[in-house]
Amino acid sequence: MQRIQLIVEYDGTGYAGWQRQQNAVSVQQRVEEALSRLTKAPVSVTGASRTDAGVHALGQSAHFDTDSRIPPDKYAYALNTLLPDDIRVRCSRAVPEDFHARFSAKGKEYLYQMHVSPHAPAICRNQRAHVIYPLDEALMCREAESLLGTHDFAAFAAAGSEAKTTVRSIWLAQVERRGEWIGLRVLGNGFLYNMVRIIAGTLIGVGAKKIAPGVFARAFETGSRLDLGVTAPARGLTLMRVFYRDEAQAGADGSFISACGEYR
Amino acid sequence: MQRIQLIVEYDGTGYAGWQRQQNAVSVQQRVEEALSRLTKAPVSVTGASRTDAGVHALGQSAHFDTDSRIPPDKYAYALNTLLPDDIRVRCSRAVPEDFHARFSAKGKEYLYQMHVSPHAPAICRNQRAHVIYPLDEALMCREAESLLGTHDFAAFAAAGSEAKTTVRSIWLAQVERRGEWIGLRVLGNGFLYNMVRIIAGTLIGVGAKKIAPGVFARAFETGSRLDLGVTAPARGLTLMRVFYRDEAQAGADGSFISACGEYR
Repeated sequence: MQRIQLIVEYDGTGYAGWQRQQNAVSVQQRVEEALSRLTKAPVSVTGASRTDAGVHALGQSAHFDTDSRIPPDKYAYALNTLLPDDIRVRCSRAVPEDFHARFSAKGKEYLYQMHVSPHAPAICRNQRAHVIYPLDEALMCREAESLLGTHDFAAFAAAGSEAKTTVRSIWLAQVERRGEWIGLRVLGNGFLYNMVRIIAGTLIGVGAKKIAPGVFARAFETGSRLDLGVTAPARGLTLMRVFYRDEAQAGADGSFISACGEYR
Repeated sequence: MQRIQLIVEYDGTGYAGWQRQQNAVSVQQRVEEALSRLTKAPVSVTGASRTDAGVHALGQSAHFDTDSRIPPDKYAYALNTLLPDDIRVRCSRAVPEDFHARFSAKGKEYLYQMHVSPHAPAICRNQRAHVIYPLDEALMCREAESLLGTHDFAAFAAAGSEAKTTVRSIWLAQVERRGEWIGLRVLGNGFLYNMVRIIAGTLIGVGAKKIAPGVFARAFETGSRLDLGVTAPARGLTLMRVFYRDEAQAGADGSFISACGEYR
C-alpha cells in the first residue's frame, strides 16, 4: 500500500465542484474513475479543498492509497490519457503514509479574477467575473491590506460552514490591475466556506464606491455577514496552490510547488 | 448611409476563422447575422484580418455601412445581446466614409501563447499551444530581436499567400516568460499568411535547441520556407490590435485603442 499525492488542474465550468455529488458530475468522480480504470481497483481520492461548482483549480492537491506498482511519478502521465481535457494532473509523487491532502495542509493560495468593462469577455470568459461598472483599484488595494494578520472571520462565512473556529491568518492579500483585468490574490492558513468570494464581492463594492472603506475592520468587530458585500460569482475563483509547509517556508519551497509552475 | 467600425473579440475555438465559408460557421457570418437582425437589412462586414480557424482575436477591427439610425456607440451593446458568448463587440463608433478596416490599417499586433510543460493545460487550454519539451527563452528572445526592422519575409509565408510584396516592417518582437507560460508579442506594419505562426514555430525550435540561432537571418537571405520551423498551432495565436496610425503614434493613441483595454 502506497500513498500518492496528485496536483490537479481543472476548468471547473462543467463540474458541480470538486466533491462527489449524487446527481451531478464532479472533478473528484472523474479522477476516481480514471484512477480505478488505471489501477483496476476501486480508488477513492481525498482533496485538500472542496471547490464549489464553477470554481477552477490550478493546484488542487489530493491523495489516494493504492497497491498498484505504477511508479508514483507516472500517474500524472497515465491519468492524463484517461481524463477529459478540462482536467489535467500536473504532477504525482509518493508521500508518507501520514500525509493527508486536507489535514496536513498549512495554507492555500487563491486568485480571484475580474473583467472590468461594459462588455463581457469572450476569451477565457469562464475564468473571470464580469464587472460592468468602473472600479477604483487603489481603494481595493488599501482595503485588502486590512485583511492581513490573524482575525476572526466569522462574518466572512456563508451559512453552512462547518468550521470549528472562524479565526484565520491571512499572509498576502493583493489587488493587481492590468487594463480591464483585475486580480485579487490571497494566501492564508485556511479559508471558510465562500470566504474568498465574499472578500472579492466586498472589494468590488469598495472599488465601485458602493461600500465605504474600512468595511473589513467593521466586520471583524461585528461578526455579521450583513456588513459585507455580496458573494462574487464562482467563475472568477481559482485555487492556485495548497501549502504543506509553514508560512515562512511556503515561498521558499523550490521543489514540488514550483515544479507545478505559475499561473500567467 | 453611415460607416461604422467595430472592435470584435472572439474565442476562435468553435469557428472556421473570421472569413465567411461555404460549409462552416465563421465569426464574420455570426456578426453579419446579428447586424442584419438588428438593422432589419442585409449587412456585410469587412474585417481587417482573416484570422484562421481556431485563431482568436481581442481586437479584430471591422467596418460596415448602414442606413440605420442606431447611435454608433450603441451597436456594441445591442450586438452583444444577439451574439453567442464567444463573440463580443468591445466598442463601436462612426468612422469617415473613406475608412476601410483592412486597407486603412497601418499595423497589427499579435500575441502567441505557449504552455511549456510535460502536461497540457486545462484552464484556458484553447488559447495556448502545448510544448512538451523545455524551452530556453533567452535564446528565443535573442532570435526574436533579429526580426526587427524591414526585411523581405518571402520565406515566412505559407503557400497560398496572395500578397503583392513580401517586404514587411516589424516594430516589436518580444518573448516573455512567467512560469510555464511563454508569450511572443509581435507588432508590425503587416503580416503574410501564417507568418506569425511560422515565426512562433521557428522560435520554439530555437528554444528547444533543435534549430540553430541565426535562422531568421538565414531565411531572409535564402527566401526559403524550408529554412524555417513548422507552423505553430492556431490555438496559440490572438490578434490583439489593429493600428490605423503611424508606428510612432500607435503607442500614444490614447483614444480608441486603449479604450479597448489590455490583454492580461
